[in-house]
Amino acid sequence: MPNPTAAMLVIGDEILSGRTRDANMHHLAGELTRAGIALSEVRIVSDDHDAIVAALNALRGAWDTVFTSGGIGPTHDDITADAVGAAFGVRVEVRDDARALLAAHYGRSGQELNAARLRMARIPEGATLIDNPVSVAPGFTLGNVHVMAGVPAVFQAMVATVLPTLTGGDPVLSTSTRIDRGEGDVAGPLGDLARDYADLSIGSYPFQKDGVFGTNVVIRGQDRARVDEATAQLAKLLP
Amino acid sequence: MPNPTAAMLVIGDEILSGRTRDANMHHLAGELTRAGIALSEVRIVSDDHDAIVAALNALRGAWDTVFTSGGIGPTHDDITADAVGAAFGVRVEVRDDARALLAAHYGRSGQELNAARLRMARIPEGATLIDNPVSVAPGFTLGNVHVMAGVPAVFQAMVATVLPTLTGGDPVLSTSTRIDRGEGDVAGPLGDLARDYADLSIGSYPFQKDGVFGTNVVIRGQDRARVDEATAQLAKLLP
Repeated sequence: MPNPTAAMLVIGDEILSGRTRDANMHHLAGELTRAGIALSEVRIVSDDHDAIVAALNALRGAWDTVFTSGGIGPTHDDITADAVGAAFGVRVEVRDDARALLAAHYGRSGQELNAARLRMARIPEGATLIDNPVSVAPGFTLGNVHVMAGVPAVFQAMVATVLPTLTGGDPVLSTSTRIDRGEGDVAGPLGDLARDYADLSIGSYPFQKDGVFGTNVVIRGQDRARVDEATAQLAKLLP
Repeated sequence: MPNPTAAMLVIGDEILSGRTRDANMHHLAGELTRAGIALSEVRIVSDDHDAIVAALNALRGAWDTVFTSGGIGPTHDDITADAVGAAFGVRVEVRDDARALLAAHYGRSGQELNAARLRMARIPEGATLIDNPVSVAPGFTLGNVHVMAGVPAVFQAMVATVLPTLTGGDPVLSTSTRIDRGEGDVAGPLGDLARDYADLSIGSYPFQKDGVFGTNVVIRGQDRARVDEATAQLAKLLP
C-alpha cells in the first residue's frame, strides 16, 4: 500500500524576503519521513488572504494531510485563522475553551488578556485545538489541515502532538552509498539499477570535496530485503 | 509602480525527505529583495514529471519571473529539462552549442563525454543557455523561466548571471526595531500604525531570549521618507 501523503504551507513574508531562513519545513520533513508519511509538496506564500486560501484549498484537495506554519499570533499580520475559515467556508470566532487557556496563562503571569491577545482564541468553527506547551496560544485542526505556529519551538511541539494522531505508513528505509566518482560516470549503471528496481526510489546527489567529484546514492523503499539487494547490486556495479 | 514579482520552484526529493536542507531558496530570496523584485511564492515538488509541469505552468502564469533549482544533472532522476519542455510544449534535444561546451570541458579533464553527460546538453527548443562557471553544464532560460542547477555553488553562480538581465524595481528599504515587549503588548499600537501607513509593509516577529519575550518590528517600503516617518512614529508609540 502506498504511504500516506502530506503537504506543508508556510505562511510568511519574512521567509520570502530572505530575512529569516525557514527551519520548520526541514524539521517536519524529517519527522514525516520517520513516520512513514511522504511529504509531497511544500508551498510558501506571503501574508496575503487570497494567496493563503487558494494554496490551502489546492493542497488539502491534493494530499492526505496538510500542515501550515505561521500567522496565528496576536498582531495585524496574523491572518491565518481567518484564511483557513474562508477556505473551509466556516465562521471564525473567539472560542470559550481557547479563551480560558489564554486567561489562565496571562492571569498567572500578571499580563493583561487584551484585545490583541484575545485574537489568538479566534478559532474556525468545528476545529479541535492543538496544545501549545511553550506559549499556550493553541493551534487547531480542521478537516485534514493542522494549523500551527511559525515560531520553531512552538511548531516543533505542535508537530510532536499531532504526529501520533496520524496514520503512518511503513517506515521508509534507506541506505546511502558514497561513490568517489562524478555523477556523469555513475549515471549509466545507476539508470540500469533504477530500471531493475522500479519499486524503489534511487536518488543521486553529487558532491565536490577537496577537488574530488563524488556521488552519494540514496536507495529508499519499504521492503528491507529489496533495499539491501539493490544496495548490494550497486556495490557490484560501481565498486 | 509595484515591483516586479518572482516565484521559485524547487525540484527535489532530497529536500522533501528531510535529507537535505534547502539553501537555494534563502539565497535567492535575499538576492531578489536587494534587486527590488518581490519573491511572491515558492513551491517544492518531488522528482515527478507531472508535478513539475503543473507547478511550473501555474507559477509562470501567475508571476513575472520563475526560477527553478534542481534536476538538470546527468542521472536518471534529472528530469527537469523534459518537464520544462513539456510545460512549454516544445521539443528537448541535444543542442550543438551546449554539446560543444561539455566536449571542451571533458576533453580538458580527460573524461569521457558519455551518453549520461550528453544528457546535460539536452535543451528545450527556443531556450538560451545560462553560463555555469563552476561545472560547465549550462542552465537555460525559456520564456520567463530560468532553469538552474540544485548544487548551491552552481545555483548561486547562475543567479549572479541572470539577475542583472532582469528589470528590477526600486530597492525595498527596511528598518528593524527591537522592542522588549511581547507581541500581545505591541499588537494594538502596531495595528494602528499599519492602518496609518497602509502603503508600507509592517511585519511583527516575536522572539524569546533569556526568558524575555520581545518583538522585532520590520517596516518595509520603497519611499525612504515614509519608512523613516513610520519608524519614528513606532518609537513614539512604543518607547
